[in-house]
Amino acid sequence: MSAVELIQSAKNASGLLNRASTSQKNAVLATLANLLEANASEIIDANATDLANGVQNGMAVGLQDRLRLTQERIAALGRAVLDIIALPDPVGGVVSGKTLANGLKISQVRVPFGVIGMIYEARPNVTIDISALAIKSGNALVLRGGSAAENTNRVLIGLVKSALEQHGFSPDAIQTVDAFGRDGAKAIMTARGLVDVLIPRGSANLIQTVVQESKVPVIETGDGVVHIYVDESADLEKAVPIILNSKIQRPSVCNSLETLLVNQKVASKLLPKLAKGLAEADVTVHADAEAKVLMPGAEPATEEDWKTEYLALELAVRVVADLDQALEHIAKYSTRHTESILTEDIRSAERFLSEVDSAVVMVNSSTRFTDGGEFGFGAEVGISTQKLHARGPMGLEVLTSTKWLVRGDGQVRS
Amino acid sequence: MSAVELIQSAKNASGLLNRASTSQKNAVLATLANLLEANASEIIDANATDLANGVQNGMAVGLQDRLRLTQERIAALGRAVLDIIALPDPVGGVVSGKTLANGLKISQVRVPFGVIGMIYEARPNVTIDISALAIKSGNALVLRGGSAAENTNRVLIGLVKSALEQHGFSPDAIQTVDAFGRDGAKAIMTARGLVDVLIPRGSANLIQTVVQESKVPVIETGDGVVHIYVDESADLEKAVPIILNSKIQRPSVCNSLETLLVNQKVASKLLPKLAKGLAEADVTVHADAEAKVLMPGAEPATEEDWKTEYLALELAVRVVADLDQALEHIAKYSTRHTESILTEDIRSAERFLSEVDSAVVMVNSSTRFTDGGEFGFGAEVGISTQKLHARGPMGLEVLTSTKWLVRGDGQVRS
Repeated sequence: MSAVELIQSAKNASGLLNRASTSQKNAVLATLANLLEANASEIIDANATDLANGVQNGMAVGLQDRLRLTQERIAALGRAVLDIIALPDPVGGVVSGKTLANGLKISQVRVPFGVIGMIYEARPNVTIDISALAIKSGNALVLRGGSAAENTNRVLIGLVKSALEQHGFSPDAIQTVDAFGRDGAKAIMTARGLVDVLIPRGSANLIQTVVQESKVPVIETGDGVVHIYVDESADLEKAVPIILNSKIQRPSVCNSLETLLVNQKVASKLLPKLAKGLAEADVTVHADAEAKVLMPGAEPATEEDWKTEYLALELAVRVVADLDQALEHIAKYSTRHTESILTEDIRSAERFLSEVDSAVVMVNSSTRFTDGGEFGFGAEVGISTQKLHARGPMGLEVLTSTKWLVRGDGQVRS
Repeated sequence: MSAVELIQSAKNASGLLNRASTSQKNAVLATLANLLEANASEIIDANATDLANGVQNGMAVGLQDRLRLTQERIAALGRAVLDIIALPDPVGGVVSGKTLANGLKISQVRVPFGVIGMIYEARPNVTIDISALAIKSGNALVLRGGSAAENTNRVLIGLVKSALEQHGFSPDAIQTVDAFGRDGAKAIMTARGLVDVLIPRGSANLIQTVVQESKVPVIETGDGVVHIYVDESADLEKAVPIILNSKIQRPSVCNSLETLLVNQKVASKLLPKLAKGLAEADVTVHADAEAKVLMPGAEPATEEDWKTEYLALELAVRVVADLDQALEHIAKYSTRHTESILTEDIRSAERFLSEVDSAVVMVNSSTRFTDGGEFGFGAEVGISTQKLHARGPMGLEVLTSTKWLVRGDGQVRS
């Protein structure tokens, strides 16, 4: 079969899954969790092949770690699938409705998208995550994973197909176009009318390529050049732990802090203390001239630093005159993911909340809380940095659309 | 200024409008309504120039009518602007929210998109409609109207700018790129980061071009190959008026009926009676072999007819074996806008509602009710045939996104 034929077969198989009951979908998920456990050694064997190929091709150690599946990681994947069983089914929920003056009853109900596409990198846990989320939300799925995980993904997708089949659904409802390489990705991106929404996950580069090339509607999950602004009224006892937590707790993820803006009135009190904490955690600081004086060992910041998502133990620091200048800096350099103000002044807080145009805007909070799990969604589809359809951490509802049902008794329009 | 600079200036002006209060925005709208009335003769003069150019260029009579503004039409536009004042402001509405276990208070609130783009044809009423909707929803606006309405639009946009300016907003918050022709449209479609959402309105051809070429997220307002299926259990006394209303009441719009599917068990009773009503309204019928026998004067239907949105007094008619075959036909040929089943059988009704994958699915209702006004939205941005963000008739809320506000007191993630 061609890539387009595979996608068409997912579309053909989607109807039954779109209309499946919650208990049918949960049964598929329970079986999938069992199959993951029962086939752990087969998964690990396939993964070993991918890892060996990766090592031979000079794959970076960090990427090898993302690719690696162990007994424990497979068990964790199975538990994540079981967790999704416990989530409420978004399908069938009534969003709004009323009876019109002419007696027509109209209601807007949640329905699955139909077929979801995903293009992502060599992280096989994503394969199981998105499969479980798609099944729970009643969607068929077309996947293009990283070639470096091809063997692992083939086994994992085989297990998903088997779980579907055991409960009377067509295994075609999940398809991979990995065998077609880049052409497979292209087939998904041009499958208007077959794929209803496409979610790219991975590097900024991958996401931008998909956003630019896709003819299918895309949900952009973006990179985060995340800012904290320390206001002149900030409680510095709170500020230091928040800044350190935002930067250090998990620097490789999109909600970690990248640029710190400090009001000049508190810079001399805050920065020396902060520099110590950052140094203890081996954070490289890129500071503007005013901050550099207060942070021993800092490197000079360049224009490039303000634009950079380090995803590493590096931090850009700038001293600003006031809230206005902080807002200007954020408007200019932010990727509109997450920004936080540290302040005890309610007017500064409200102004920041109102004027910063980002998916998540915070007061006196670590930026690391921008997360579907932390927000209580129970599942994380990613964090949307676009404004259409979904913005910020995305839960299961993001994988649904709505349709309008109209029930009449012979009404005509006059 | 270049087209990109004009768009950038709208972006720069958007912040103040994004954060405007409801009363500020309503004041702008009230002024706009007054300006329309006070400047009717200037509008009509500019419109006369456009019409004269249109006649010279051989513009079709129907298009001339859409382009024409009269004293009465300008008065109606003003009333429509005043109606929008009465609508609830979607901005600031809290969509969801809670306090997390760690004390963080999170809330998801409606915010304006920022800058909305619209590409449309030579219908100057759209210029005022979308301007009023954008102002009410706090959005800046970049317009590319049909070149044939350029003079009229220049005057109308001047009035909108004046209304904004009189209330302390920058006139840059509404811009037209008409002066740049096709390059203006291209500038909007590639303005990622400046334009947040793009809404094309007009012919299927225009919309598909925008959908295919735009790098900015698009809301697709689509064409309607709208179906009615007459079930074997249908009440034929109700069926005839519903079908005639759906086809005849306003054939030029997207929610009018294009293809009628009739269960073979009721074809011989329904079709002769229906043929009479259709003939009286001068509707040309394109019938399949079985229907043709029952409908004197019908032309034979071709494969092309099933795919055609006539937008005229023409109707395709097919006799089907049963509901299954009707669902198959709809799945194959529908543009997923609106479909209606006529039936007295609750099982057929529920199956149709569940299995038809269209924006609006109806039982025993004229398809003409798929309309923002009829649904009680008070304003109509268009009818979305895509599944992302908005589906079906779109009201003011469609012009908003959301953002998450997080209020903490020093929380860090462990």
